[in-house]
This record gives sequence, C-alpha cells and structure tokens, in this order.
Amino acid sequence: MTLIQVELNERSYDIEIERGALNHAGVAVASLGNVSRAVLVSDDVVDALYGEKVANAILDRGVDLDEIVVPAGEDSKSIEVANSLWERLLEIGTDRRAVVVALGGGVVGDLAGFVAATYARGIRFFQIPTTLLAQVDSSVGGKTAIDLPNGKNMVGAFHQPSGVLIDPDVLRDLPREQYVSGLGEVVKYGASLDASLFETLEANVKDVDACNPDVLEQIVAQCCRIKAQIVHEDEKEISGRRALLNYGHTFGHAIETALGYGAIPHGHGVLVGSLLAAKLAMRLGRNGDDRFKKIDSEWLARQVALYQNLRLPYRLDDLSKKFAANDPDVAPERLLHIMSTDKKSEFGKLNLILPTALGECVYAKGVSQDDVRLILEEGL
Amino acid sequence: MTLIQVELNERSYDIEIERGALNHAGVAVASLGNVSRAVLVSDDVVDALYGEKVANAILDRGVDLDEIVVPAGEDSKSIEVANSLWERLLEIGTDRRAVVVALGGGVVGDLAGFVAATYARGIRFFQIPTTLLAQVDSSVGGKTAIDLPNGKNMVGAFHQPSGVLIDPDVLRDLPREQYVSGLGEVVKYGASLDASLFETLEANVKDVDACNPDVLEQIVAQCCRIKAQIVHEDEKEISGRRALLNYGHTFGHAIETALGYGAIPHGHGVLVGSLLAAKLAMRLGRNGDDRFKKIDSEWLARQVALYQNLRLPYRLDDLSKKFAANDPDVAPERLLHIMSTDKKSEFGKLNLILPTALGECVYAKGVSQDDVRLILEEGL
Repeated sequence: MTLIQVELNERSYDIEIERGALNHAGVAVASLGNVSRAVLVSDDVVDALYGEKVANAILDRGVDLDEIVVPAGEDSKSIEVANSLWERLLEIGTDRRAVVVALGGGVVGDLAGFVAATYARGIRFFQIPTTLLAQVDSSVGGKTAIDLPNGKNMVGAFHQPSGVLIDPDVLRDLPREQYVSGLGEVVKYGASLDASLFETLEANVKDVDACNPDVLEQIVAQCCRIKAQIVHEDEKEISGRRALLNYGHTFGHAIETALGYGAIPHGHGVLVGSLLAAKLAMRLGRNGDDRFKKIDSEWLARQVALYQNLRLPYRLDDLSKKFAANDPDVAPERLLHIMSTDKKSEFGKLNLILPTALGECVYAKGVSQDDVRLILEEGL
Repeated sequence: MTLIQVELNERSYDIEIERGALNHAGVAVASLGNVSRAVLVSDDVVDALYGEKVANAILDRGVDLDEIVVPAGEDSKSIEVANSLWERLLEIGTDRRAVVVALGGGVVGDLAGFVAATYARGIRFFQIPTTLLAQVDSSVGGKTAIDLPNGKNMVGAFHQPSGVLIDPDVLRDLPREQYVSGLGEVVKYGASLDASLFETLEANVKDVDACNPDVLEQIVAQCCRIKAQIVHEDEKEISGRRALLNYGHTFGHAIETALGYGAIPHGHGVLVGSLLAAKLAMRLGRNGDDRFKKIDSEWLARQVALYQNLRLPYRLDDLSKKFAANDPDVAPERLLHIMSTDKKSEFGKLNLILPTALGECVYAKGVSQDDVRLILEEGL
C-alpha cells in the first residue's frame, strides 16, 4: 500500500493506493469520522462493475448509504444533472456530516465534487477514481466543475476531497481508449515534471502496455506524489506553479475543441499536444531562447519512441481519422484561433507550458502566434 | 467615511461606509486592480433607482461594463436564474480578471455572489448593498447561495467579496417593511453581542425611526464591525463562533417557514424570534441554569420597549395577521417540529443562541423540546 498525504493550507488528506482497495472503501469513509451517511454517486457503467462491492464495503462499517447513479458520459456534467443531485440530497435529508462518495472517472468526480462543494455551502466528499486519468489527475487537487453548453468546466469550485482511494486493479476493466487517455497524463508528468518517472515508463513498456497492476500501482503513486506536491504549493492556481501541470494542454485543448468536445478522450489531446509543445520549444530554442536549448530532435525522438512503444497516438491526423465525425476543421488557422481565445492567452500572445529538459518545464509567456502557426503547419 | 477591514485567513477586504458612496462605485471597483471588466448585477427595482448612477460611476473610471438585471424578489435565487447568469458571463467573454458587482439587497448579493463563486471556479465580486438587512448582514461575510424549491439557501458557497461599498442614503428609499426587517438584525446585534449598540439605539429612537442617514451611518458601521470581527474569527462557521450571529434565528426560521417562505421579511422573524429566545433563556435561568440568571422580566421589558419605540413587531400574532395568506398553522407543535428539523438540532434536542446579558449570548446546546414548547404556548 502507498499512502500519500496532500498538505493544504488548512488541512490535509490522504491518497491511499493499493490493489484491492475497493474492498476498504467502508473503512476509509468511516474513518473520516462523524459521518451521518454516505451518498455514493456513480455512473451506470461503473455502478454495474463496482457499485455493489463498494456499497457493501460501506454498509459493512455501519454507515448509512444512499446511491445515485447518473448516465455515463460527459453529458452528465450538466446543470440539469447537478440539480437532480442537489434535489436528491435534500430529499434524503443529507446534513452537514454526510460524505459524498464519487465512484467513477473524471465526469463523476467533477460532478459529485461540485455538488458536494455547493450543497449546504459545502459538505465532504471522497474520491474513488476508476479510470487511469482520474486516478493520476482529476481525483487529486480539488478542481470540480460542470459544463455549460458552450463552455467545458465553466461552472465549478475548488473543493478538496477528504480522501482518495485508488485501486489499480480496476484499470484492467478499462477500455483501451480510456487507458490510453490516462497514459497521456502519465507521460505528461514524466516528460515535463519527473525524468525518473519517464525512465520508469521506458523501462517498463511491456508491463505498462499490458496494464500490469503492480507496476501501475507504483506509477500511479508517483503521479499522485507529483500532483500532491504541486497542489500543496499552489492549491488554487494563483502562483502559476499549478499551471505547470498543463504541459500539452493548450495545444491539446484546441485539438479537443476542434474535433468536438467529447469526441476524443482528453488524454489523447494531451499526447499530441505535448509533442507539438516540444516542437515549439525546439523552435524557440533554435531561435535563441536559451531556456529551450536542451530541447533538440533527439529529445523529441525519445518522446516519440516511448509513444510508439506504448502504442500511443502522436499525430493529429491519427486522431482526426479515428475520432472525428465528418470532416473536422483542424487547419492551423482554426487551432490557432482556439488557442488564442484560451484563458491563458493575453493581448494576442500565447502563454503555454513548454519543456526545457526531460522532466522540466516552464510557463512560457508571450509566445508569438507566428511561431505557433509554423509548428501547426509543420505537424509531426 | 468609515472604513472597516475584514481580516480573513488568506487576505482582507474593506467595507466603506459613507453617505453618497454610490458615486464612488467606480473608484472602488477600479482600485481592486487588474480589472478586465465589471459585470453589474441588479434587480429591476434597484436598477431603476440606482443602476444608471452606479454604471456611470464605473464607466467614468474607464472600466468596461456589462449589466444583468433580474426580477426583484426571492424567486430570482433559483438555479434557472443562476444558469442564465453563468451563460451570460460566458457569452460576453468574462475572464478571470472580471469583477461581478452586486447592486441590491440580499437576493441580488446571494445570487451574484454564488454565480461569481462558481463561474470559472471563482471570480471576484463586489457588494453594493441597498437594503438595511444586506448592509448590516448579508453583504459581509461571504455566505452566498441560491434556493432549491424545498430548501432555502441549500446550494451555495463561501465566497468573500473583494470589497463592500455602503451608502446609507439609499435607506431613505426603502419601503418601511424592508427597513423594519433590517432593524431586526440591527437590534439582534445590540441585544446579543454589543450592549453599547443597544444603548445607542435606545438613545436615538427618533432618528432611527426617521431613517436619519447620519445616525444610520454610525449604526451600520457598528454592525459591520461586529460582523467583521466574528467572520475573522470563524470564516466558515466551523468553530461555532459565527453561530452567535444567529440570536433569534432558530425561532425566527420556524416562523418564516410556518408562514411560508417569502411571506414575511427575514428580519421580522428574527425580531419575534429574539424575544422568544429571551423568554426561553429566562425560563432556563429560573430553572437553575446559572448562565441565564441575568435574563429577567426587566431585561425582557427593556427589549420590548425598544421594539415599541421603534414601532417594530414583537408578537407572532401580529406577523400572522399582517403577512400570512389564509390561516397559517403557527401552532406550537408545528413550530417545534420545524425547529427540531433545523440544521442545528441533534438527537431530538435543540441547539440555539440564547442571551445571557445585554450584549452577550451563548450557543446553548441540548435544550429540551418541553421547555421550548412551553415558551411557544405562552407567547409574548
């Protein structure tokens, strides 16, 4: 078992990572203390797989339980579904000592977390992430949100969980595409923040590809350690430190938007976006920006090799062909336009996270649109 | 001008109280710094009175401005209206450097504050309260919320304003009933937390009754000072200190609920509830609870006298006759039932704020239902 503590300004919480951890859900929830009831929130797919196991584990510890199941998929991150959860919590008499338990991927965690953040001005919630993406990223750090029809994650709150329980065994049940999406964030941690993690991935390509749960337990733990440290340093994304988690995300977000939200898994956009960001860094380095002088074609080739060995997509074309309906407009000008309306852009210049060495990156401000356009035109 | 600083864990903000302060709205908003635009939220009644003045004051400082007007009344604290505000903020391209400016009473402040708390996981908001109740209570302290159909304030967030601007001159425009409601909270501060404020009210009965803005400036400032101190000590209502602001509120809430939410102004419930709480304290003192030995019939008579001199309602019957449609059930058993489902009740016992002397109170836990029933039967 690996136990990681996330230290916040006012309190801390534990991330427990262990094979078979779903069976301890009751112990983990009950040990939060003074729990009037648990409200288990899941989606229909995850509920069918693990709902009963987790529910029984909670009931076995003598904790009252209610269950809410929402349809699987991004559409559940809507105001309508959030509203139905608030109503249900009120209906069953949820008080301030209740704990909302999110069992599922990022959608369930974001939705249940936002509802917990805002019901009665905030009750506790507990995360049991069941996708690799949620285990290494969205379940840790307290970002919760729902979508507006025209704005993903536009309504939300920072609301840290009271605890996170991660069972690597569930990853074997994950469809390949969702697994690949999670690997997108894992590779991101390695490439931009932790060279030793990147090397671990390189050294364990077969086990990672085969979803070996013992190897994954170590890898997930390392990702959570990195994220816990950054969240500790910049809980609410004020200092800019937390922005470093976004390597590959500005390009990736543009790709996701251009292909239509929900059309491609988030991590796929990050995978392709990371390589584009690396190419951009390489160009800036060649043009005299010394921060990026270590980013050369060898560095890029090493990242591409890892992608290939893990059978990860790395070209925009691959994503378009595979995921997009019809003929999506992913022309450089379109992507550039989306990127320049990003929250991080200012005065027509782009701000994005770029690599400076293996496991290192910076928040590069004021990158010109011309440089970005060239990279988009060139592709990989 | 009076300037009060609210010290929070992570930052502080100012409450500026001055006659004619509406004209300084632009200076106050612009001085928050790094403001991309102001989004003025108001209701149709308040907008007609002060919207143009405040908008011009903001525009005069070169700050971009958008305006959103919602219908006046508690119905605007709904998910539907919140949703329309989120959509509108997105539509006009609101970014993280924008400031939501709430111009209005408690409904506008609670709604705009909640929308600001959750748009893009939280943007700044600024309060310009235009009712006495909002000036002395809801605009300070960061409680924001909307209602569910069956639960007032059930969806919300703690989100402190970036500043509060209070203009006592606007109180002259306030309908008598709303003014009386605000006085309910003012008298509460004096009776339960600040004897000198209570004495100031006694000494200035005519000016208070006539809504003299110079006198009110001092009184509002004193209420804000008290609230700022308590919010500083217990920002998120964890230690119990902040609960002391709720003298009269457990009885008052039951009265409001029994008469139908929105049927009576909040402060009216507090006014009658405070006297019932005082009678309860008197009874407990007589029965040997030494905390309440100073609460005698003289103490109660002094409070009733102030009510009479200020022409404030103090009997439940007066409220029922004046505000309730049909024939509301305000029988002791009904009120007791509502009180025992209050968030503060536990294991069939009631927890409420009771006075111990003029300007002093305690959080009394475990009060028996029998004692409360007797007080409700006896009335005033």
